[in-house]
Amino acid sequence: MILIDGKTTAKKVFDKIKTETENLEKKPAIAVIIVGNDPASKIYVNRKHKKAKEVGINSLVIEFDENISQEELESKINELNNDDSINAILVQLPLPKHLNTYRIIEKILPIKDVDGFHPENAGKINIGIEAYAAPCTPLGVMTLLDEYKINPEGKHAVIIGRSNIVSKPLASMLLSKNATVTICHSKTQNLKEIASTADILVVATGKANIVTSDYVKQGAVVIDVGISRDKDGKIHGDVDFDNVAEKTSYITPVPGGVGAMTIAMLMQNTLRLYKIQRGQK
Amino acid sequence: MILIDGKTTAKKVFDKIKTETENLEKKPAIAVIIVGNDPASKIYVNRKHKKAKEVGINSLVIEFDENISQEELESKINELNNDDSINAILVQLPLPKHLNTYRIIEKILPIKDVDGFHPENAGKINIGIEAYAAPCTPLGVMTLLDEYKINPEGKHAVIIGRSNIVSKPLASMLLSKNATVTICHSKTQNLKEIASTADILVVATGKANIVTSDYVKQGAVVIDVGISRDKDGKIHGDVDFDNVAEKTSYITPVPGGVGAMTIAMLMQNTLRLYKIQRGQK
Repeated sequence: MILIDGKTTAKKVFDKIKTETENLEKKPAIAVIIVGNDPASKIYVNRKHKKAKEVGINSLVIEFDENISQEELESKINELNNDDSINAILVQLPLPKHLNTYRIIEKILPIKDVDGFHPENAGKINIGIEAYAAPCTPLGVMTLLDEYKINPEGKHAVIIGRSNIVSKPLASMLLSKNATVTICHSKTQNLKEIASTADILVVATGKANIVTSDYVKQGAVVIDVGISRDKDGKIHGDVDFDNVAEKTSYITPVPGGVGAMTIAMLMQNTLRLYKIQRGQK
Repeated sequence: MILIDGKTTAKKVFDKIKTETENLEKKPAIAVIIVGNDPASKIYVNRKHKKAKEVGINSLVIEFDENISQEELESKINELNNDDSINAILVQLPLPKHLNTYRIIEKILPIKDVDGFHPENAGKINIGIEAYAAPCTPLGVMTLLDEYKINPEGKHAVIIGRSNIVSKPLASMLLSKNATVTICHSKTQNLKEIASTADILVVATGKANIVTSDYVKQGAVVIDVGISRDKDGKIHGDVDFDNVAEKTSYITPVPGGVGAMTIAMLMQNTLRLYKIQRGQK
């Protein structure tokens, strides 16, 4: 069993970005919008902000009261769309319930949509043509597979979970790399049976430790996208690591696996959009 | 075994459209662009044109020499985008090789993209939010399932083929209806083994009769999207019908199954875009 090390892989990405931005007179810039006072969202936004500065990317955090209207938020996005000094726009999710998340994401110019959530980018990823940016978490998974020379071609990849943020774009990316792809979810019957046929098993449900060794084929690659905290504050993945690990060929730990890649991919996307906007890509 | 009758279902759709358009002072209008002299494409375009008139939809066929440049074709699309008398634009595929098909499809306004191939529509279908239009063949498959009260929820749907025109949007639609979805293709290992676990088996490869009874679980629903002609001019599906039919609970014939639905869905999409553009939907 080989442990897939997200931290080390992320560091390589950060180092590469830093080297590139050092030579730039004008730095790439990302604007992050946060609405309300969700503590988890604040932590994520702070981490992104800090890391951006570390790798030579300008970061602007824009905070709004949780009562902001749809119109005000859309008008701010419009302003950022038209601001040449901003290359990348991110709206921290989830948004308060009175806001229409899809309509807000649709307002972001696809060429500044650093999260790759705009329908135009989602469509290009699904079609298999180059998007401006692809969602960070699935991109992180693909980067880890690549780093560990795990070729999805001809493999059966089973994804548990069907979110737009992780599972659907990951399914498209794995399909583009010639994997056979199955998407399972809460309505799936015989989940255990299907999961245990997977050569590559990706779990993205947000439910702690639901995948035990009877879900896993001997020698499978197991990618754990989940992260949750129990009442004692301990962090868990969706995979019962201690129970599953010895059966796998490769496995990602939680923390230090897929989660460690997300901000690296965000910074990579920001630099990518900067280059596209300057005609360098 | 119940035969899924595409012809009768299509007729219902056509009748419904005809009833609706009869009461309209201004008729919906579709523009179909055809480039070159491919005989199959000409046949398809003529059929669409004829059927449109029958159901009260204005149809404009625009023919171009096969040497038309990318710029000329894009400029024609722009013109149709700006023409208020045209509700729907279709570019008959395949295009000659010197043209960039994706870039041409991207030029069509998403709100006039009657084939649902524009990345924005593809993205919305993948995300599971309402697109302006969805591709006709998968929409035809979903309509047939609905007509025969076959509920995909909790079922394992296996799709053989991974085209952008049929398989990928169909996977998204089945997933939105709570099916577990597997996409297989030419690089899939153990195809027979995977196919024979399917509750709903969709075959869209264009290879005549490749699915024989050992690919099919007893009682499965089998949807055959393929159509090809042998050297004697006889039409075949991708499913070896005589060999498979008795094992299924429902099966589509070829011809008279999925293929019979495509133009009905095209007309339905044209009427839909007309209504959306007039704020009636």
